[in-house]
Parts: sequence; C-alpha cells; structure tokens
Amino acid sequence: MSFQHLRDADGRPAWSGVLPGRPEPYVLRRGEGEHANLFGDLFTLLVSGDETEGQFGVFTSTCPSGELIPTHSHAGTHEVFHVLDGAVRLFLADRDGRHRTHLLRAGGFGFVPAGLPHAYRVEEAAQLLGVVTGGFERFPQAMGTPTDDLGEQPPFVPEVPRLLAAARALDVELMPQFRWDVTGDEEGR
Amino acid sequence: MSFQHLRDADGRPAWSGVLPGRPEPYVLRRGEGEHANLFGDLFTLLVSGDETEGQFGVFTSTCPSGELIPTHSHAGTHEVFHVLDGAVRLFLADRDGRHRTHLLRAGGFGFVPAGLPHAYRVEEAAQLLGVVTGGFERFPQAMGTPTDDLGEQPPFVPEVPRLLAAARALDVELMPQFRWDVTGDEEGR
Repeated sequence: MSFQHLRDADGRPAWSGVLPGRPEPYVLRRGEGEHANLFGDLFTLLVSGDETEGQFGVFTSTCPSGELIPTHSHAGTHEVFHVLDGAVRLFLADRDGRHRTHLLRAGGFGFVPAGLPHAYRVEEAAQLLGVVTGGFERFPQAMGTPTDDLGEQPPFVPEVPRLLAAARALDVELMPQFRWDVTGDEEGR
Repeated sequence: MSFQHLRDADGRPAWSGVLPGRPEPYVLRRGEGEHANLFGDLFTLLVSGDETEGQFGVFTSTCPSGELIPTHSHAGTHEVFHVLDGAVRLFLADRDGRHRTHLLRAGGFGFVPAGLPHAYRVEEAAQLLGVVTGGFERFPQAMGTPTDDLGEQPPFVPEVPRLLAAARALDVELMPQFRWDVTGDEEGR
C-alpha cells in the first residue's frame, strides 16, 4: 500500500490504493481517503466494509448549506449522522409513524436504524461524520463521482438513471411521496 | 425514551436510558451519552451494538496526555482511532511482524484490524472518536466506572482483578512482554 498520490495513466483517481481493501492496519492524514463529489458535497471515505469484514464503514462529508436531501430508507443499513461542525436538520420517522425533526449542531449525534424513513438538510455549512453498515459507505461514489479536488467544486448532479441504478444496488428506497408532518421543532440539539 | 437527566433513587447513572437499547431512531446533544471514567479519560458512548444489531459501536473520549496505553489485541474486534483534536501516537504491528508508529493529529485516522497488537499514547490532550465492532464499545464501563461528571476528574484506576475480568469478557489479550521495535518515527499524520 502506498500513500503516494501520483496521477494514474489509466485515469483512476489519485487516491486509488489509499485504503488496503482488506483487514490490514493503516493510518490516514487529515484529508486523505477516497474522495467523491455528490451534489457538491465532498465525501471522504476513511474505512470501508472491505477492511472491517463487512461490519461498518466510516466517512466524512463537507457540505455547503442546501436543500432537503430527499426522504429515503435503506432496509439493510443502520446509519449514524455525527455533526463535527455547522448545523444539520435531521428528519426522523419512528416505527409508530410519528415524525420528528432535530437541528444538530457541532457535537450532535443522530442514529437512524435500518428500514426507517429519514431526510436531512444542511442549514449551515457543515462537516459530518457518517458511520454505516458495511457496504453502504461507497454510496457517494456510486451516486456521485470520484474526485481528487478537495476544494470547493461545482456540484456533480447524477443523471436520473445513474441515481436509480445506485439506489437499487444499495437497497435504497426513495420516497418522493413522503410528507413530513412535524408540528414541533426541537432546536439546540 | 427520555433525555431528562434525573438522578435515580437506585443510584444508577443519570444517563441511564439515554440510548434506546434497540434499533430505534434517536438524537443526542453535545455531551449526551453513556459516560465512563477509565484512568481519567472521559468516555462517552453514542451508539452501541444494542442499537446496530451487533454491527458497530461509536464513542468519543476526552483524554489528558499520559503514558502508553499498554499493548494489547482483540481477536474479534476491528477498531478505528479518529483524532478530533490533540495528538495521539499510535503503535501498530503488521501481520508480517513489522512495527510502525504514527503521530496522529486532528483529522488523522488509524485502523487496527482484529487480532493485531497495538498501543497508543496521548501526547497532547486529545479528543478521539472510536468506532469498534459491536459489543466492544462498553469496555470503558467494564474496565472503568460509570460517571455523570463531565469535567476534569480524578482518574479511576481499576483493581487488577477487575481489569483482568473485563479483558477476559471482552476477549482482549494483554501483552505486557511486547516490545515495540520502531526505528522510524513517522510524524505529521
């Protein structure tokens, strides 16, 4: 394994090989990892199911404020939203159908178990840390595009067939008809 | 589930019940979670294997600088060390017996797969985020002591029988005879 960031003649991203792809020890410096751009969010994959025998993956995302990330669920994937910086509003549905929304600020933490509808909106430019069931952590690469550009970048907006194919492959149910019935607005979380 | 922090007549920590104990959605404010003191480090459990069907647990730790956390391995547990603040030196052994050390600063990330010897030393007061195979995340409660005190606190030093019993229960192999043969000292990670 090499941490050398050399451009590859085959056009692969410079970060290729930065993760070992099997359970071996490694370290990453700040900013190292597998980078992808999805709707202008910069995702950095730090560890994948390939290293954890499918148990979990961990990534960060750097997100400008924006629109609601549409409601969806994933039957096989538990998901953590940990806000490192900024402000992110999480929309959660309980098993009894009750809806909630929480504004998470730095240090805030949200857990969405497999199979429950959720959505979120970045209300102030944010850095998030995600932990997910192993295999799901490459959704930004599947829906978005690999990148080596760590600065502000034009949003990569996937074409609908690409988005739908990635959703199918990741067992994501998109729920465009879902309406959030949130009467209370819990702040300060 | 309630986020009310009320003292319990039975002497349980005030954080009891802050995690649902099953796969249900929830959020935590900064500082909320299950707190434990081990050697003066304040651990805050954010999600456990009880919520993730045994897949993973996530916790933070706030650590003063200190001595080497002794070399150990755990055959069934993959472990992530993500440095949020401060500086932590990680000692890693590869499968071929090669030893490495890396100083991780804010944003640095280390992965230790199951079964390999490792150790670490907090060189500047640090905040760490840990992700581990589900079940291992309560080691600070098993080896240390639950607490509701989030400030600087006297170190809780477990008696040896308690430490050994917790190590057995968590399948941790303590390796007091292990010597780190680190010729290079990789900095700046």
